Amino acid sequence: MKIASLRLHPIAIADGPLRSSYGLHAPWALRTIVEIVSDDGLIGFSETYGGDGPLAALEETRPLLIGRDPFQLAGLYLEMTERKVDAADVRGGSSQLYLVPGENPLDRNNRTFAAIEIACIDLIGKAVGKPACDVIGGRVRDRVDFSAYLFYKHGGAGGDGTYEDKYGEVLDAKAAVRECRAFIDEYGFREIKLKGGVLDPEIEIETIRQLRAEFGPKYPLRIDPNCAWSVDTSIRVGCNLREELSNGGYLEDPCPGLDGMGEVHARLLAEGIDNPLASNVAVTSFADVPKAKHLEAVQVVLSDPHYWGGMRQLQHLSHLCGVLGMGMSMHSNSHLGVSLMAMTHAAATCPNLTYACDTHYPWQSEVDEVVEGGRIKFVDGAVVIPDKPGLGVSLDYDQLARGRERYEKIPFRKRDDEAEMRKHVDPNWKRILPRW
Amino acid sequence: MKIASLRLHPIAIADGPLRSSYGLHAPWALRTIVEIVSDDGLIGFSETYGGDGPLAALEETRPLLIGRDPFQLAGLYLEMTERKVDAADVRGGSSQLYLVPGENPLDRNNRTFAAIEIACIDLIGKAVGKPACDVIGGRVRDRVDFSAYLFYKHGGAGGDGTYEDKYGEVLDAKAAVRECRAFIDEYGFREIKLKGGVLDPEIEIETIRQLRAEFGPKYPLRIDPNCAWSVDTSIRVGCNLREELSNGGYLEDPCPGLDGMGEVHARLLAEGIDNPLASNVAVTSFADVPKAKHLEAVQVVLSDPHYWGGMRQLQHLSHLCGVLGMGMSMHSNSHLGVSLMAMTHAAATCPNLTYACDTHYPWQSEVDEVVEGGRIKFVDGAVVIPDKPGLGVSLDYDQLARGRERYEKIPFRKRDDEAEMRKHVDPNWKRILPRW
Repeated sequence: MKIASLRLHPIAIADGPLRSSYGLHAPWALRTIVEIVSDDGLIGFSETYGGDGPLAALEETRPLLIGRDPFQLAGLYLEMTERKVDAADVRGGSSQLYLVPGENPLDRNNRTFAAIEIACIDLIGKAVGKPACDVIGGRVRDRVDFSAYLFYKHGGAGGDGTYEDKYGEVLDAKAAVRECRAFIDEYGFREIKLKGGVLDPEIEIETIRQLRAEFGPKYPLRIDPNCAWSVDTSIRVGCNLREELSNGGYLEDPCPGLDGMGEVHARLLAEGIDNPLASNVAVTSFADVPKAKHLEAVQVVLSDPHYWGGMRQLQHLSHLCGVLGMGMSMHSNSHLGVSLMAMTHAAATCPNLTYACDTHYPWQSEVDEVVEGGRIKFVDGAVVIPDKPGLGVSLDYDQLARGRERYEKIPFRKRDDEAEMRKHVDPNWKRILPRW
Repeated sequence: MKIASLRLHPIAIADGPLRSSYGLHAPWALRTIVEIVSDDGLIGFSETYGGDGPLAALEETRPLLIGRDPFQLAGLYLEMTERKVDAADVRGGSSQLYLVPGENPLDRNNRTFAAIEIACIDLIGKAVGKPACDVIGGRVRDRVDFSAYLFYKHGGAGGDGTYEDKYGEVLDAKAAVRECRAFIDEYGFREIKLKGGVLDPEIEIETIRQLRAEFGPKYPLRIDPNCAWSVDTSIRVGCNLREELSNGGYLEDPCPGLDGMGEVHARLLAEGIDNPLASNVAVTSFADVPKAKHLEAVQVVLSDPHYWGGMRQLQHLSHLCGVLGMGMSMHSNSHLGVSLMAMTHAAATCPNLTYACDTHYPWQSEVDEVVEGGRIKFVDGAVVIPDKPGLGVSLDYDQLARGRERYEKIPFRKRDDEAEMRKHVDPNWKRILPRW
């Protein structure tokens, strides 16, 4: 079996007016669906970041792929990243501090490779009749838990104005509790994540408190302000939410940088608070992990097959975190069902995954799903590994064509939450770190 | 495809009177050949440590294996080792200081799993028509270099007395150079390893010097006294061989323990000598690796799929060493061609393998080889990945039966180099660390 062709489908999917410390989600999120076709006519799929940058990077891989054995991925990874594994060559990754995941130049090669690798693993699974998780060494669980990923948001519709969600405006604690109730009723999630860094920290503290009051301690809570707070504010929030973020919760990227997070952790510890700190901003490459450990800045690393270099690199990350005594969770971006299944299969193989994974999936619409048969089902907050080869999904090509039509119609080719914020909320808005 | 049966073949193979700081090799080395048979009649092979202990441990896995999907190895690994990856649970591994590899109780589960995993990967390769290295993610090289593994040794024959090797007695520098010349002429090796810790360090220093004089700086040199030296002696040897162990060479396990090796490295550095220290005695588990890094005690970890938990764990080790800025080489024990191919396939997938691997293969006899078609060929010191499914070898069942007959005839069921030393060389001999 050799790779005969590569097909790239840039698409746009409706996205609600979600807020984060990066700014505001545009009405459309950009994705790319990748198809790798073998010489015997099988097709492997993956889904990755969208827009011009990721598309061009994938396009560049074409000469490396055609005629290649899809099993021989490790050599391709070296070709696409670096020949020598040298920790000193993998620089800090700090640019995810200002650029959203998918736009960080430091992990560009890893993102591009991941999209190819996942499609090849799907292809291999179909060729050998095995689920993707078993192609890469075997599952350690048959179902993967996801968390209720709550956002503060504006009212109104994403997309072309017809994609109104059921949650309305969510800009205070009470509305967030309502949003969470709807999430849990519909999906059965058993852990809760709040995207913070949007409102005054006092409101966000109050939101976490009301979530705890409503759902009780059986639902672990995490809050992620994406570095919007100073060290002092981070400590204040950590002290105020001492109880709420314990027992399966965590405080994610409260402030910028590993040094700051190390100080937050040390000063919280001095207060007798040992709730873990998590990160997907300060830790975005393997070189960051031992540094984070050394500084005791991060206790939980947020993995993501999309930008850590694919499913096998995720397994290495899980192993590394285990060896260093760190936990692992999973990061997410706006995505459809192909990404969700790649995240699920990758997560299913990692022993050291001790938290429910993030997913933006509830924020996307069934109208845009490109998976044949419609949206992936959640059972008690989890996605079950399907008893089908590869990722276990196939593409609805009519839906894919509609996604591409939407992509052709919209004017932008890059995610820019800051520009969106200036357009709709405040013409002078800038990402300021720390904001509080 | 499910696992239908497990067949275990304990065998004995002739071994020469090789010396190390552990003592003397017995005339027979013990191995176990593992066959895992699928319900569709395919057979996967592996080779592992021999004797009663490994055999009983493998026998215990039978109920876990029958009816199992051979692709689902990660779950089996957890069942056979530990449910939670927790660095604190993986104890030091110091017992390889006194017990030869294969008898260290701390890696017992990893050894047992490895034998099962490798046979399953061979089986998968045969089922899907791909070489083992590509089943586990793909090769980064098509050929794997091995080193000339020189031993001081007594004269006379191994086995039943008919297995006289061509090297005769090797108990001084001149004989070691002769041995090395024969190795290089026959196999084409391009790196040289001397098993030391046997003779007075002055003789071993002289041996390395004469090897350098004879073969020149194009042949990197390493010496491994298996912890026979004190810190001071280690430093003295390191200073005396400053030039000879540079540029691709290393000093392996000169003294016992990570603290001692850390001191050796620091004091050599103070002398301006930064040749790497390598270890397969002080570093035998993942928990040892960051500790070794922290102490700057070890710069090169010797991997071995047989006791590090199989081919995929070896990949994790390669990755971990890369992240921590450490090098990786490969350890070996007396073995036949099935093990050699497992080592070759595993090594072929590891980017961060910067040294030729060890192999005892030249010390075994073609009379005992169980691989169909006879001994594996070396080309310029390397083994080439065969263009065949799985490990790329099949079994000669007549040879296997002869190996088992030998096993049944010999009286011992456990490797004990110390007992052998007392029997043939010195009735009062004991492993003393440090000896010099």
